[in-house]
Amino acid sequence: MSASTFLQRCNEAQRRMAEKGVDYLFVSVSTDMVYLTGYETWPSERLTLFILPQRGKGTMLLPAFEAGPLRTSAPFFDIETWSETQDPFSVLDSILRMSTGRSTTVLATDTMPSRFLLPIINRMPSADWGLASSIVSPLRMVKTAREVELLRHAQSRAMECLSKLLDRPFAGKRELDIGRELWSICLDSDLKVSNFAIVGSGPNGAHPHYHLGDRILSEGDAVVIDFGGSYQGYRADLTRTFHVGEPSEEFRGAYALVKAAQEAAFQAVRPGQTCESIDEAGRDVITQGGYGPQFVHRMGHGIGLDEHEEPYIIQGNSLSIQTGMTFTLEPGIYLEGKFGIRIEDQVVVTASGAERLGNMTRELVTVG
Amino acid sequence: MSASTFLQRCNEAQRRMAEKGVDYLFVSVSTDMVYLTGYETWPSERLTLFILPQRGKGTMLLPAFEAGPLRTSAPFFDIETWSETQDPFSVLDSILRMSTGRSTTVLATDTMPSRFLLPIINRMPSADWGLASSIVSPLRMVKTAREVELLRHAQSRAMECLSKLLDRPFAGKRELDIGRELWSICLDSDLKVSNFAIVGSGPNGAHPHYHLGDRILSEGDAVVIDFGGSYQGYRADLTRTFHVGEPSEEFRGAYALVKAAQEAAFQAVRPGQTCESIDEAGRDVITQGGYGPQFVHRMGHGIGLDEHEEPYIIQGNSLSIQTGMTFTLEPGIYLEGKFGIRIEDQVVVTASGAERLGNMTRELVTVG
Repeated sequence: MSASTFLQRCNEAQRRMAEKGVDYLFVSVSTDMVYLTGYETWPSERLTLFILPQRGKGTMLLPAFEAGPLRTSAPFFDIETWSETQDPFSVLDSILRMSTGRSTTVLATDTMPSRFLLPIINRMPSADWGLASSIVSPLRMVKTAREVELLRHAQSRAMECLSKLLDRPFAGKRELDIGRELWSICLDSDLKVSNFAIVGSGPNGAHPHYHLGDRILSEGDAVVIDFGGSYQGYRADLTRTFHVGEPSEEFRGAYALVKAAQEAAFQAVRPGQTCESIDEAGRDVITQGGYGPQFVHRMGHGIGLDEHEEPYIIQGNSLSIQTGMTFTLEPGIYLEGKFGIRIEDQVVVTASGAERLGNMTRELVTVG
Repeated sequence: MSASTFLQRCNEAQRRMAEKGVDYLFVSVSTDMVYLTGYETWPSERLTLFILPQRGKGTMLLPAFEAGPLRTSAPFFDIETWSETQDPFSVLDSILRMSTGRSTTVLATDTMPSRFLLPIINRMPSADWGLASSIVSPLRMVKTAREVELLRHAQSRAMECLSKLLDRPFAGKRELDIGRELWSICLDSDLKVSNFAIVGSGPNGAHPHYHLGDRILSEGDAVVIDFGGSYQGYRADLTRTFHVGEPSEEFRGAYALVKAAQEAAFQAVRPGQTCESIDEAGRDVITQGGYGPQFVHRMGHGIGLDEHEEPYIIQGNSLSIQTGMTFTLEPGIYLEGKFGIRIEDQVVVTASGAERLGNMTRELVTVG
């Protein structure tokens, strides 16, 4: 992405701020910051804040000793710094030179830590506060063709990595060992791996957000593998469920339902449909199959610079989907004490329906 | 750590809450949550909140579909859940059954995202808000013998991994390649690797928080390698600076200063000394060597469950250090356009002084 892309995004945010009467966006280190400015750094206890007023240039406030690389990139915003022993909030005061005549509306990044938000709120007692997502999410939700290509690359790479894992034996290994092997495969690709990985074998798979542990896999185990990573900041999120050796009839039946539910949800994706209708289309399949109460989570979540972002594909969300939105479809069935099953793909909304990003079989695969 | 350890920590927090007139700690997904309850999960857009009142049992509020494993561990706190389509804040209301007769003081985890903090503030308009670190940091800062052992294990393991990297050639590789090799070495150890790695070669090393990139190393480059990881949640943080081939006199001189500064800071560590006096002891060495302005950051930071935590070893921090505190000592010299040098160890304060965790040479090492 070029500086002009970021400037354009800021301008669009400012247009919406004006519409809604928002005076400032306060953007802490986050994917919102990456989206609006291109600046990526580690979140830490040191304040880095992008201040976008309703009109005019934004300002990046950051630690002086981190400013060097940013200055040389000649960004479209101003740079203000605080030295290591200075109070960063006093520098913020001087940037804002707050007009005290009227109430100010400020939106803070949804992930801004309270260690920054509370001191800022205390310094601006008459301000009205809200979340930056109300301005930024509608922009971020609809991806450009370039963004979709980056997501496709990330997701395809994750599929390649997971496929390589299938050549290896599963039985006799710990979940942790399998996770490490997968990670190691990812390291040899251009997928930037994150901490995010679930390897849930046997009964562990019945907990949707189980991580991975010491359990040793053996013949007869199902195993849910859910992992991510990123390419140029854009995220992969992929789940497949495999079976070590021949599965039972119960497992086969449940697996077929999850697969059919994901396909039904996929077929329901079309511009103008609501998020909840997509959830419902898939959920109905599982409910009619008798496993409704065992599908304990939403159908999916938006994906982009964040693993989870808007739109959420969930009952109660009447948001209409639009061409260019990207989200996961990941129905599951979780049988306490037995196994879990989840199949997750990432899709992009097209003019006429949807397209899955990447290409990996959803048929039941048995492993050794 | 056992349930009784976590209960004891909560009780100690409650004792301090009573002293300071704090009614509630609101602990979001964070290392504070791990420290106080042992519960570890991914931070996400779904609310997970540990509510610790000044007296009585705490309550963990979390998504229903994530509660299974927690219930079976029979924790010392109550569990309340919200279903996937429910408003979690309404469940919070019912947990609090707020007494409206008087003002309530609530402290929120320093890293609590505004997406949780702002809605909660809005629901409790008469509450006074502050940061949980005022209660929890004094506890977390002083490590038990067991915690020190975990930190020592993590740091020693990081040293072993970095040492293995030195057997390999550096010249001709990109910073990214070196980072990946290091990561791959870590994956084969029991150090849990994180995204955190700096490989700053040549002029890139002059930016203290540079990450890693496409620059290819060659003879004559210095390279700053700074990375972390964790063992059972406790963090390693290690920096060494190497030189590809024979270094210049300028580099040798600056390196010797950084090494001497780190040793001077180390010698200044003793219970009762202030954090700033330790910073000063090391900084003086670099200033007297003529590079004062090129040592652009603090001397170090506390370390434990977080990579960066209190106490901060910085000018202006008059906190007295105590036996059992752990922090880094990491002076540096950064010469714009040329190179950076940083040497970082982790130390624990002992009854009579300090001890470095792990054992890796700080002598100048040249690599191939």
